[in-house]
Formats: sequence, C-alpha cells, structure tokens
Amino acid sequence: MIYDLIIVGGGPAGITAGIYAARKKVKTLLLTSDFVGQTGKALHVENYPGFKSISGNELLQRFIEHLRQFEIETREQEAVEVKKTDQGFKIITKDNGSFATKAIIIASGRSPRMLNVVGEEEFIGKGVSYCPLCDAAFFKDKRVIVVGGGNSGFGAAMELIRYASKAFIFEFAPQVRADEIIQEQAKASGKIEVFLNVQLKEIKGKGKVESVVYRNHAEKKEYEMPIEGVFVEIGSVPASNLVKELVDFSETGDVKIDPWTCQTRTPGVFAAGDITNIRHKQIIIAAAEGAKAALSAHEYLEHEKQN
Amino acid sequence: MIYDLIIVGGGPAGITAGIYAARKKVKTLLLTSDFVGQTGKALHVENYPGFKSISGNELLQRFIEHLRQFEIETREQEAVEVKKTDQGFKIITKDNGSFATKAIIIASGRSPRMLNVVGEEEFIGKGVSYCPLCDAAFFKDKRVIVVGGGNSGFGAAMELIRYASKAFIFEFAPQVRADEIIQEQAKASGKIEVFLNVQLKEIKGKGKVESVVYRNHAEKKEYEMPIEGVFVEIGSVPASNLVKELVDFSETGDVKIDPWTCQTRTPGVFAAGDITNIRHKQIIIAAAEGAKAALSAHEYLEHEKQN
Repeated sequence: MIYDLIIVGGGPAGITAGIYAARKKVKTLLLTSDFVGQTGKALHVENYPGFKSISGNELLQRFIEHLRQFEIETREQEAVEVKKTDQGFKIITKDNGSFATKAIIIASGRSPRMLNVVGEEEFIGKGVSYCPLCDAAFFKDKRVIVVGGGNSGFGAAMELIRYASKAFIFEFAPQVRADEIIQEQAKASGKIEVFLNVQLKEIKGKGKVESVVYRNHAEKKEYEMPIEGVFVEIGSVPASNLVKELVDFSETGDVKIDPWTCQTRTPGVFAAGDITNIRHKQIIIAAAEGAKAALSAHEYLEHEKQN
Repeated sequence: MIYDLIIVGGGPAGITAGIYAARKKVKTLLLTSDFVGQTGKALHVENYPGFKSISGNELLQRFIEHLRQFEIETREQEAVEVKKTDQGFKIITKDNGSFATKAIIIASGRSPRMLNVVGEEEFIGKGVSYCPLCDAAFFKDKRVIVVGGGNSGFGAAMELIRYASKAFIFEFAPQVRADEIIQEQAKASGKIEVFLNVQLKEIKGKGKVESVVYRNHAEKKEYEMPIEGVFVEIGSVPASNLVKELVDFSETGDVKIDPWTCQTRTPGVFAAGDITNIRHKQIIIAAAEGAKAALSAHEYLEHEKQN
C-alpha cells in the first residue's frame, strides 16, 4: 500500500494542502503530531481575510472542519524521518510506524527556539513555558520573566499580566525591538518592567522554578532573582529535521523552495509554510503555500504517471 | 497631498493588501472600479480555507467588512494610467481624477474573455461559468460544453469529467491547439468529445442553461444541442494596461514579479494576484500575494524614508 501523497503537518499550510489534494482526488495521508501548532496557540488572529477577529484555536478548528468535508485520511502521529526509496519515499513515525508514498509535502512549521541554559529543560512544565496563552492562568498573582523584547515578548507579557502580578521582560540588546504601540501599552499597564542588556544564565529551583541567574553585560555583573515563571520568546526554528538529507537549507535554517512551485531540491519533496524560506510567516501566506504545494504535487504525480 | 501607497483592485489580492497596509499604518488608498471581479462572480467557493462552502459574493463581502475594520480610504473609480513622477507615481482615473503616491500595488486581476453571444450574460451562474475549478462539482452526472480547444479548454474538460458524465470541446479551428499529451489524456478518458470547425452562436434555457445553438462552418449548417453547462475557456485578459510602461510581461501577458516580494521591474511598483505570473490563479493564493505585496511595499517605504 502506497499513498500518492503524504502531507506532514496540521497547521494552515498542511491543512490547506490537504484540502487541495483531496479536491484533486489524490490519495493522501495527512500526518501530524497534533492539530495545535503555532496557530492554535495564537490568542487573536485579526489578519486572516474573512475573519475580523478569531482565536487561533477557533480558526484552526474551522480549517480542520473544512478538511473533514473531503475524503482524506489523517493520523495524529509524529513523523521523525523521511527516506528515499525506489518507489518514492518512506516516512518513519516516532512509534516506529512507517508509511510509503510517491510524493511528500513537509509543512511541519516551526518550534519555539530554546534558551539552552542550565535548568531550562528540567523545568519545562514546572515554571518554564513557551506558550503564554496555554499557561498564563497557572501564574495567578505570581511573578514571571519573559525572555525576549520583540513583539512576541511584549505580547506574551501583556497576556501574562492578566494573571501574573508582575512581568519582567529580559532583553539582551540595549533597546527593545517591539513596535512603539505595544511598548506604550506595556508601560501603561504598570505591571511590566523591562530589563535591558541582560542575559539569562541559569534557571534554579527544587521541583519547580524558584529563581534565575542573569548577567547584566553593561554592568558586567551577575544577579540572582527570585521568580516563579520563565516564558521564552526568542523566536522559532523550523521543524525540518526529518527531511534534512533531502532538502537544502537557507542561512537561517529554513527549507529552500522554488517559490513558484514549493519544490525542494528533491523531486517529489515539496515544502510549504513557515518551515520554508518564504519571507513572511503569516497564516494567510502559509495557507496559500499549502495550496500551491498541493497543486504542484498533483502536477508532479500526473507527470510521473506518464513516464 | 501624496499617499504612501495606492492599491488598485478590489478583489482578494487588493483587499488583503489593504488589510495588511492598514495594520502597518501606511497611508493607503484602495482604488477599484468595483468590488466584484472574478471572485464575486464565483458560484460557490469551497477551497478558501475556513469556509466550507460560500458564494463568491458572500466571501468578498466578508473580505470588505474585514477591510472596513481598519482606517483605510477606498474609492470606487477606475484607474486607467500610472505615470512615474519625481515623488513616485501619479494614477489617472477614467473620470480624469488623479492621485499621487509613493508606492503602488497593482491587483486589478483578470477578466475572462467572453464569447459575446446571446444568452451568455443571462446565464452566468446558471450554467454558464468561466471557472471549472470553482464550479465542476455542480455538474455531477451532467453534460457540459467547453468552448475553446487550447490547453485551458482541455484542462477544463479534464477537470469537469471528474464530475460531469460528458464534456464536449467546441473548437472554431479545424484542429485543436492543446498539447498532444493532454489530448491523449482526454481521448483516454472516454468522456470527452471534440467538435471542430464549430462556433457557438446562442445559449438558451428557462432560468438555467438547457441548450446551445452552434454553427459548423465546414458543413455550413446550424445545430441545436441540449446541454446543462457551458464553460468558456477562450482566454482571459490581465487588466494590466495601466502599468504597461512600468512592468515586464510574460509570454501570456501576465505582469512579471519577483515571487518573494511581488516587486515588478520598477522599484515601488508591486503587483499581486491573478494579474501576475504566479502559476495558480486561486483566491487563497491571490490573498496571500496581496499580503506579501503590502509587507514588501511597507519595507520599501521604510527604506525610502531613511534615504
């Protein structure tokens, strides 16, 4: 049993690819570790045309409902490796399952970038979080740090202070990069304080986060600060490990595609959405890239059939 | 008074460009002859993720409502010419108005070339269609005509017989122009029949298409044929006349863009959606291209400001 197409990823790019492939009656499996991803965690989406304001989770549910209108198989399993075979490709899952396919679309998106400091991994789910929307409510009347002074860091802080008594934004640079408008909102809240020139060095505690060690590199001094939560908002990395032998990467680690077709270096391997080197990581753009990849995969399969 | 950005076009690309530009607080005017276009005429849209099934017109109304959430000026006037000026560009409208701007996004889409026969306009959305991909599913087990024996006509017929019981291709010339390979596929399907030397003269029916009158000019005879759908595939025309001095065109008359940024040959002139040489003319893709063009125009304006 061999699929015509396996789509890896259950976000806007993967789901739209699924809709387009199913409409072309391509025998398709959509494989995803879950249907949450970055979109599902977004508090408000106000720039996906057609929906003035919708939660990321609700938008994703509408995408999934839309997909389910069509004949398409979906499985919630994590793909960990893609191998080239004589007939096409073999996808290995975390639980050692394997699926054969003639073509593949990688749309597994991005994962939050980690700090890589002592204590970070140990305290994931015990005070360390990458998802303010998921975890804010656990920090009622507590003090938290947000690492990263960009828009997403400030957005996280604003979300957190709906529960937390205080949020400290840690920024490595001598100034923050967030838009003026969101900086003003943060200031007006009276509950957000920005630390500039600081680098978080270690997260400490017994069973849960109790303090952090950070260095102020302007002052060249280290401090320890008692704290109950650490939210990491320093960007994201493409979840592209599973195709590393089959694709080329940009300097920033994105999967390189032909922008007209979403084709990677390997014929039959397409990539779509935030995992690729498209310039803007936006839901509407990821969805379109999924459509494009599915239409290109369909053309590829039709062409292969004739040879 | 000079705008930062003028967007020409009120379809998915233009409106999404408007949403993105307004969110970036770019001083923008959206100029469009009307808010209908190809999308507004689509019978049913079932491939814009988030809406399982929606009329083209309803989807467009939701786009417009979304746009109106933001501070953005819109005018229903037809742009006829764009001129380069010292400060940027000047857009001349049909009624001799003129607007100055620093940057411009052309998203005026395409119009299908029409047959201009009796009954054609009357039955649009009632059996007459210019979009097989949009409307094929509504002709399940029905008989349809495709007018035009080029690649797009054959492509339309192949798309249609996934649902339709039979498709007749009407070609005016004594032979068809489609590639061999697609002709062979059509033949192999057993569901496509080609009529040569024929010209469609009239579309008839009561409330919906019921028959067509056509002339075989080799035989010099007219016939009436019962039929339930007429798809017109005699080309489309990009509405790009107004920028003809500022952009390059592909062989098919599409406006050439850099696919990463939607930039045309002229700095400050961007193009988005079906008017461009993107490969797939789809609503979701046009919308994304609009977002991309607006983000690129914003970058362009920021960069100009610094110089």
